[in-house]
Order: sequence, then structure tokens, then C-alpha cells
Amino acid sequence: MTAADSSPFDFAAYLEATRLRVEVALDGSLGPERPESLREAMRYSLLAGGKRLRPILCLAACELAGGDSALAMPTAVALEMVHTMSLIHDDLPAMDNDDLRRGRPTNHKVYGEANAILAGDALLTRAFEMVALRSPGVEAERLLAVVGELSLASGAPGLVGGQVVDLECEAKSVDLDTLEYIHLHKTGALLRACVLTGALIAGASEDLLAALRTYARGIGLAFQIIDDILDVTASSEVLGKTAGKDLTADKTTYPKLLGLEESRQRADALVVEAKAALAPWHGSAAPLLALADYITSRDR
Amino acid sequence: MTAADSSPFDFAAYLEATRLRVEVALDGSLGPERPESLREAMRYSLLAGGKRLRPILCLAACELAGGDSALAMPTAVALEMVHTMSLIHDDLPAMDNDDLRRGRPTNHKVYGEANAILAGDALLTRAFEMVALRSPGVEAERLLAVVGELSLASGAPGLVGGQVVDLECEAKSVDLDTLEYIHLHKTGALLRACVLTGALIAGASEDLLAALRTYARGIGLAFQIIDDILDVTASSEVLGKTAGKDLTADKTTYPKLLGLEESRQRADALVVEAKAALAPWHGSAAPLLALADYITSRDR
Repeated sequence: MTAADSSPFDFAAYLEATRLRVEVALDGSLGPERPESLREAMRYSLLAGGKRLRPILCLAACELAGGDSALAMPTAVALEMVHTMSLIHDDLPAMDNDDLRRGRPTNHKVYGEANAILAGDALLTRAFEMVALRSPGVEAERLLAVVGELSLASGAPGLVGGQVVDLECEAKSVDLDTLEYIHLHKTGALLRACVLTGALIAGASEDLLAALRTYARGIGLAFQIIDDILDVTASSEVLGKTAGKDLTADKTTYPKLLGLEESRQRADALVVEAKAALAPWHGSAAPLLALADYITSRDR
Repeated sequence: MTAADSSPFDFAAYLEATRLRVEVALDGSLGPERPESLREAMRYSLLAGGKRLRPILCLAACELAGGDSALAMPTAVALEMVHTMSLIHDDLPAMDNDDLRRGRPTNHKVYGEANAILAGDALLTRAFEMVALRSPGVEAERLLAVVGELSLASGAPGLVGGQVVDLECEAKSVDLDTLEYIHLHKTGALLRACVLTGALIAGASEDLLAALRTYARGIGLAFQIIDDILDVTASSEVLGKTAGKDLTADKTTYPKLLGLEESRQRADALVVEAKAALAPWHGSAAPLLALADYITSRDR
């Protein structure tokens, strides 16, 4: 949290306060679903903690664009739902076959495969419901644009496409371009949707939207490089998921292609680039600037 | 196709012409996805034929409400995408474990489980993209309402919720209320969304929307009763899927609870009820009235 030290903006307090707002909204986002078992499976993964970076990015982008972040909260929740759905499906036996996620058994380990698939499907559709039917006070044109960004980020042009290429490349050695492709889609697309949707709700200018695309590309790739680095350097206990899995699975990673040191340098350069894009908005961009630093300084 | 005989409206011609329009739109709905394997898996199930009842219901409801059905075509495609996604996921080994669908191997038998799950996810998100980003000429308020209906029909309040209850009730004997709950959600919700979204795009009155809800409830339940009946009476060859599966799986069905004869009577009564709701719109409701008959007279 170096950014907080160099400016009067108290990032740690901002991060915690915003995360708590998000937790409250997430907790209230699931209705009395029937059957109860579906609701439980949805809640289990949606309320499993985590940094809530995606909703926070959305709210911060809304504020940067001059909007009231309360209006973006349903969209922020929707983004976390899509993220959660992708984790549930990626963890399935047919995919990454993971037993542990955020320090707890994965969804299908607790509720079974069928319910895990369906809980993911239900979270994905509920995300669109949040935007379309539970976003009072935002004009329809803006919400429709949010639905568009969310659909592009979630599907074949975004995280599903990235996951398919990722699975195809397992146990194959891939080049840097393909690795970047995977990450820009599997992780980057949704992070971009976070800042774009927040800004769209506030009616952001084209200039700001373009800057946010550059920002998101930088933090998205940096985020994934750090993830690869942590997989090599951190223990399972700190990560809350099975560490060293990428190496075991013979997966191509940044450290494997570039070495740890150059991977770290590349992540840093991407963060510098991301922050530079928001320079014209300096003061009001403080949360997003600090978030960019936070992402590369995190140790878990 | 008895309805066509009793009126000057040529239902057979209408059905075929509309189905062909839908096929063309479906064929053009998937872009040049990367990777190619994802696109193939999506196309395999989306373009597998079928009666295209859902898109046709949507277009017919749009016309009944005085709209240009071309404006509803992207939504009609979206509805078929959601339907296709639900078939792909329902067929998975973790769910109904079906090998055959529409006379061909199921998606996961051809592309593997991981790709089948992801192709379903991609079709679901592409459905929302069709409405939000590929529906030129329709005002945002109406498209947003369509997104809302589509999300409710697809998720926990609709087909996912119905599928969860259905799986929970497998090999259990359930009562008529529960059976109806399952079908109203698993099949009925999406059929309701078909007619409501078509009508919403045309700016339908509240009266018409209410009538269409009644209509959809009737044809939805009738449709499912007929499905249960066919599972008992038809061969796999005619059905294009594994016949007698409900009996093998010890599933509760209408014929099992009510007998074949009463099941057939109940389906007929529901169709009468559905058609009565549209009586005030008689002439312009001809396609929907004929569709209601078609659904109960179908032998496959």
C-alpha cells in the first residue's frame, strides 16, 4: 500500500470501507430462491470473502467519472457474480479439477457437480438481472450498454474464450503472445468491464473510457503475472488455493517463459503504463491509481 | 395442424417460412469466435435443427402486438441460445447423462465435458449480447425489459431453479404440485419469456401482456405433459432422444400420476385455456392460436 503513503488519500481506509459496502450488497443480492439448496450453493461461493477487487474497481471508476457510486452497486455485484461463476465452473472436475478455493472446499466438493454447474448458471443470469431489473435511478441507455459490456466480457469474446484456449494449451508449451491472449481474455476482459461499466453508469466521456481501457489492460496483465509469480513463490496456506498447481500441470506461465525477475519487471511496467493513462484525471483517480499499485504489491 | 384447416390462415406455410427465417438468423448469430473449437461446439448444438418453437413464439407475439417481427429476431435468436444452453448443460454426465439429443450425439459426447460446459456458458452470455448490442431499431427501455425477462426465465427464478428441483426429485415420488412447479420453471418460464419479450419489443399493452402470461402458462404445461406422454408412447427414433428414460430413471411424470388418458385431457384443457386468453385479439392471434394446437398435436 505504498500509494497511500505518498498522498493524503487514505487508501487502506477506502479499500476497507468499500469492501464492506460491497459485502453488504452481495449479502442482499440473492432473494429467497427455491429450492433452498440452490440458494445455499450460490451464497457459498458468492460470500466466500476475497478482496472484491472487481466491484471496487467498478465503484471507483464510477466515482472517477463523476457518478454516485451507489448507482453502480448493482453492477458491481453483477461483476462479482460473473467472477464467482467463472471460478465455480473453472474448478469443476472436467476443467481445472480444484478441491480448494479461498481456503475452503470448492463448490462442487460441497454441493456436487450438478449443483455447482447450475449455481454458476444461476449466478451468471442473476448478474444480468441485477443490471436490468435492480438498478434503480440509472437511465436505460446506460444500463443497456452495461449489459453489453458484461456479456462481451463474460462470454466467448471474453472469459469463456480465454478459458477454452487455456484448457487447450494445458501441458503444451505456448509462446508469449498466446499466454497474453489467454490472460487478456480469461482475466483481463472482466477487469476491463469493471471499470468501463462503472464509468458508463456515470455517463463518462469517450476520452475517459479509452483511458480506462488502457488502464484495465495494464492492471489485468499485471494481475495475472503476479498470480503466476505467487503460484511459484507462495505456500498453499497464504494463497488459500492449491499452490504450485501451474507447475504440476505443466502450464506455461510468465515465470516459466521469462523468469521470476523479468516477470516482476514486466508487471511493474504494466502498472506504470496503466497509471499513466489516468494521469489527466490525477486527483479524482486516486483510488484507481492506488488499486493499480495494490495489485502488484499484494502477497496473497 | 388442425387449426390451419379451420381458418384461412395457412399455418403450415407460416410455420415453415418463419422457421427458415429463424435458421438464417441463427446461422448468422455466431461471429468468428476464437478459438474455432468453441465456435464449433456452440454451432453444433445451436444449429442442430429442431422446431424452433421458442423463436417462432417470440416473433408471433411481436406481430400480435403490432410490431415488426424483424425487430424481434435478435431476441428470438437469444431465446433459442438460452434453450440450447439448457439442453447442453442438462445432458451433461453430472445431470441427466444423455448421449443422444435431436438424433445426434450430445455436445459433451462430441466435444468433451469442459467444452460443453463452456459452450453453454458462451451461448448464455451471447444471448444477452444479442439483445443488448445486436438489436438495432428498438428503444433501450424495451430492450432492457427484454434483458430482465430473459434473465428471470433463464436463472434461479426460472429454468435453473426448475432443473435443481427436478434433479432433487429424481427417484423420489412427488405430488402434482411439485411436478407442476418443476415444469412451470424448467420449461414454462422460458416459453413465457418468448411471448413476453416479443410483445415487449412491440410495446404491447398491459392487457396483452397479461393475456400472454396466461397463454404461456397453458401451452407451457401442455407442452410438458405431451413430452411426458411421448416419452411413454414414442420410440427413440421418432423422438430423436433416448425414449423411456423417464421411466428408467424412476421419474415422476404426468402419465405416472394421472394415467395417459387423463394426462391427454389435461393437456387439451390447458390449450383451450391458453387460446381463450387470446380471444379478444382473435384475427391477429391466428399464429399463436395455431401454435397452441400444434404443440398438443405434435407426435415428435
